[in-house]
Amino acid sequence: MTRFALTLEFDGGPFMGLQRQPHGPTVQQSVEEAVLAITGETVTLHSAGRTDAGVHALAMSSHVDIQKDITPFRLMEALNARLRPNPIAVAHCRIVADDWHARFSCTSRSYAYRICNRRTPLTLLRGRAWQINAPLDTEAMHRAAKALLGKHDFTTFRSAHCQAQSPVKTLDRLDVGPAQDDLGNAYILIEAGARSFLHHQVRSMVGCLALVGMGRWAEEQIAEALEARDRHALGLNAPPEGLYFVRATYPEDAEDA
Amino acid sequence: MTRFALTLEFDGGPFMGLQRQPHGPTVQQSVEEAVLAITGETVTLHSAGRTDAGVHALAMSSHVDIQKDITPFRLMEALNARLRPNPIAVAHCRIVADDWHARFSCTSRSYAYRICNRRTPLTLLRGRAWQINAPLDTEAMHRAAKALLGKHDFTTFRSAHCQAQSPVKTLDRLDVGPAQDDLGNAYILIEAGARSFLHHQVRSMVGCLALVGMGRWAEEQIAEALEARDRHALGLNAPPEGLYFVRATYPEDAEDA
Repeated sequence: MTRFALTLEFDGGPFMGLQRQPHGPTVQQSVEEAVLAITGETVTLHSAGRTDAGVHALAMSSHVDIQKDITPFRLMEALNARLRPNPIAVAHCRIVADDWHARFSCTSRSYAYRICNRRTPLTLLRGRAWQINAPLDTEAMHRAAKALLGKHDFTTFRSAHCQAQSPVKTLDRLDVGPAQDDLGNAYILIEAGARSFLHHQVRSMVGCLALVGMGRWAEEQIAEALEARDRHALGLNAPPEGLYFVRATYPEDAEDA
Repeated sequence: MTRFALTLEFDGGPFMGLQRQPHGPTVQQSVEEAVLAITGETVTLHSAGRTDAGVHALAMSSHVDIQKDITPFRLMEALNARLRPNPIAVAHCRIVADDWHARFSCTSRSYAYRICNRRTPLTLLRGRAWQINAPLDTEAMHRAAKALLGKHDFTTFRSAHCQAQSPVKTLDRLDVGPAQDDLGNAYILIEAGARSFLHHQVRSMVGCLALVGMGRWAEEQIAEALEARDRHALGLNAPPEGLYFVRATYPEDAEDA
């Protein structure tokens, strides 16, 4: 048995999410079926994050255990050939130790959330960002975000379906700022980092920060919502299409640096 | 009769191109039908450029003549409502003089061409860039591009279907360089500017520059292909999905500056 770490990139639009669901296509199912077609083996894909329907990944860390004798490069190439036309690609593949675990060994996760703050409907960016018509005060959003940094009970920002044992998480980073792509499209980019997140935590934080940006919430209301520890204190859950899983970090990454 | 200048953004993927075609959906048809639904008037959309199937626009300048009494803002909003779910949006709308013409008044056009130089198949960027596996030498491409600047007979870089009267054009800008978007995706971006272009000119120039980047053409072969003035000297026509019409410039833009 060899454990292969896979770095996956995917467009979450056509999927019910990363993890298997009984009622629709998922990234996990697609990758497991591709492995089955290549190796004849029924495997389970384990991943650093559990992304919802419509949420994207730039570099999701995952792993599978395979009996077949195959090099990482050949496995990657075969997976990419089999995964078409699904918008899922394997960007990297390497052999890892049997006790390396994409989910449990992960020491840090980062997400990005893209807002297109404009009146014009999205065309090329449809499904790639959250469009907000009302002008947003990016600096107010950035200031308000600071109230969420550190170790807190994030019950307010947690989905009713969250399976985490504890609502206490430590948020290491939450930055809001202007960004631009290579074609000149303007965004407000929200970058979040933590060891782990609750289900819907990033989207819930982004939703409330957007209310601050619109002036519908005072900056202080972010801290009040947090202190309420009550899902009913949540102002708004941002839609999935603006959310990107950016990367997972592991202990060996720090050694490399 | 009032002439409205429209700035259009569109994803060229689902269309046979900008201008009307007998055998498939086009941007022109979609916009003209939206105007008909709003005003009851059959109009003709005139545009600065004529983009092919699959080619995108960030800010295409167009115009229509309308009898109905309507403000530019109301027209824009009504068009955007009617154009859904087509990936076409009106970003700006203003009243212009009756002799202002989106095509004939235009003094400069600029295009961008996006290459994703990577082995990983495209997922989120599918239909938004040309993926090239082989490593490209961006600097060699940039140097080679310089041979195309200035006034030349661009017959080599012209489609057999080009309707321009003369193959002589003056290329003002052709820059090749690395670029990155807000999410960290890396590109090679080729930026082209001229008063006007021949049909397929940008894609033909990009295709040959890619051959230089791969090392399959020496840098000097760009100049040789140009001097040949023969379509058969063309090395490669780049695919449409990497091409973006960026903007059209008009005399009044210079006055504003």
